[in-house]
Amino acid sequence: MTIANLNIVPFVSVENMMKLVLDIGVDRFLTDLAVYIEEDFRRWELFDKTPRVASHSHDGVIELMPTSDGQLYGFKYVNGHPKNMREGRQTVTAFGVLADVGSGYPMLLTEMTILTALRTAATSAVAAKYLAPKGSDTMAIIGNGAQSEFQAIAFKALLGVNKLRLYDINISASRKCASNLKGLGFDIAICTSGQEAVEGAHIITTVTADKQYATILTDNMVGTGVHINAVGGDCPGKTELHRDILLRSKIVVEYPPQTRIEGEIQQLAADYPVVELWQVMTGKVAGRHDPSEITLFDSVGFAIEDFSALRYVRDQLLHTKRFDELDLLADPDEPRDLFGMLLRQAAKDAA
Amino acid sequence: MTIANLNIVPFVSVENMMKLVLDIGVDRFLTDLAVYIEEDFRRWELFDKTPRVASHSHDGVIELMPTSDGQLYGFKYVNGHPKNMREGRQTVTAFGVLADVGSGYPMLLTEMTILTALRTAATSAVAAKYLAPKGSDTMAIIGNGAQSEFQAIAFKALLGVNKLRLYDINISASRKCASNLKGLGFDIAICTSGQEAVEGAHIITTVTADKQYATILTDNMVGTGVHINAVGGDCPGKTELHRDILLRSKIVVEYPPQTRIEGEIQQLAADYPVVELWQVMTGKVAGRHDPSEITLFDSVGFAIEDFSALRYVRDQLLHTKRFDELDLLADPDEPRDLFGMLLRQAAKDAA
Repeated sequence: MTIANLNIVPFVSVENMMKLVLDIGVDRFLTDLAVYIEEDFRRWELFDKTPRVASHSHDGVIELMPTSDGQLYGFKYVNGHPKNMREGRQTVTAFGVLADVGSGYPMLLTEMTILTALRTAATSAVAAKYLAPKGSDTMAIIGNGAQSEFQAIAFKALLGVNKLRLYDINISASRKCASNLKGLGFDIAICTSGQEAVEGAHIITTVTADKQYATILTDNMVGTGVHINAVGGDCPGKTELHRDILLRSKIVVEYPPQTRIEGEIQQLAADYPVVELWQVMTGKVAGRHDPSEITLFDSVGFAIEDFSALRYVRDQLLHTKRFDELDLLADPDEPRDLFGMLLRQAAKDAA
Repeated sequence: MTIANLNIVPFVSVENMMKLVLDIGVDRFLTDLAVYIEEDFRRWELFDKTPRVASHSHDGVIELMPTSDGQLYGFKYVNGHPKNMREGRQTVTAFGVLADVGSGYPMLLTEMTILTALRTAATSAVAAKYLAPKGSDTMAIIGNGAQSEFQAIAFKALLGVNKLRLYDINISASRKCASNLKGLGFDIAICTSGQEAVEGAHIITTVTADKQYATILTDNMVGTGVHINAVGGDCPGKTELHRDILLRSKIVVEYPPQTRIEGEIQQLAADYPVVELWQVMTGKVAGRHDPSEITLFDSVGFAIEDFSALRYVRDQLLHTKRFDELDLLADPDEPRDLFGMLLRQAAKDAA
């Protein structure tokens, strides 16, 4: 990719993102993206980190999630509006920007609704690599909405999980998930309760969508040695696990200041001990140290994962044509002459 | 404007923004925009306000400036990199988004480099309407870079200022400014010092660009009764006025928590009394109450001004074609079936 004009920012539309994902293949996209996420978590201390900047309203939330590694700056705009689904809209939509810290110029604008689904799944699978029991091949997925297939494919690509046990309060969602995954090498069971879904599962993924305190998993459903990948509880007032499960688990989080507000651990005291995922990845803190241990990845989604995803997409554009050129930045011939640019446009229009 | 598809966000490119401004006319654009800004300042207390979210680096800063009135949400991305000019880039570039609080869906993406120049000038002129001496017709502009012409046109359109006294350390900037304003009804004097520029001026606008403590105005240059429109000092470590001027002035600011960090008043104690512009507009606090009073608008630029500008541009799109349709939001037929959207794209590509 060479962008000749300073005014141009490459833009990846929804259609181009789909084509990019299909060009690369969903499983390889997730595997490659996981490498970028691991790279960034391993240099965690270097990042400028801040909890997301949220604007809450009656119907939902709009958030900005910025971060920087000192060379690149990224942010994501993301909303969360549970009622949207009833109006034919997405609960969550997102877009993001990567920029050059040296000049402050944006380098990439991209849709991130699809990309967020991919990075969320890749992050879950990366965490599970360090936390799930060795030889895990069976995963329960409770909540079979928009994120479920991505989770399944990421866990297959990174961990070799090929047996799925699906449960959703709406069985048509489970059927949709099973149908979408057909031909991808999964052995799939559709279950009629959460209890049934977790039977024999090494990994339990909870990824439901309602914005309320819920108990998707009760204490008795969680046996020793499992890994829980709790994805759905991701804002204040939205949790999925019974508190007693947390007390029996090694809790791993992305960024404690954010997770204490948004994650499952909002049910616990503000100083309850948790481990940070980057500490596990870098070996500062042990991951799973005992086959009988219950591990819990209390995922809420952090800005650095979006940053990794933006970096990954930007790198793909070097050798694909899956972007448009967006005339986003004013670029007068003489930087101090912004008004003269208007005058020249007027002269051009008049000619 | 009717946008049929939920995936589409209207996008105003730099070229379309220029055409929109030229369609409307710079002076009418500024006058109309000033009405939106006044509307929003008059309902100031209703807004969700936060100081900008800044990421500082050696060479500059990248900022996100969000705000919401409960119905609409807006944010601006803006950088400030003084070194850019030496590399043929803009010191400041910006873009912004307006979104619907109810659904979280973006409603507008627009360039904001030009739009920021316009809203900054419109805000200065609105403030001066309340603060400048009655019958002001002469303005000194110290610093004749990218913002200078916009200031001149805004003050002419809103206050009737038609005599300009220009000064810049680089006289070619003054000549550029004078040349760009030719034929617009100004009587223009190019001055060889700041001292010369302020002679006989009712209003003194300082709008220099260097990121350092500077003294563009010394105390003896400011006589009784003038209004100072201090636009250039707008980040930590960047000021333009000698501290003694501040101590003699009625200081009016946009949003104290931000201005105390970024404005001229960073030179004063954190509790030094200042007046908020919205208080003057709504009559809660008197504006100029004495012809001999020195008034100072310590402008740094606040998110609500960008919000007003986004609202204004959005309203213009209802009756112009100055936008493109951006495929920014994933919009699967069935909201819970994001993965199925990928599968359908694959089927389409294969057909």
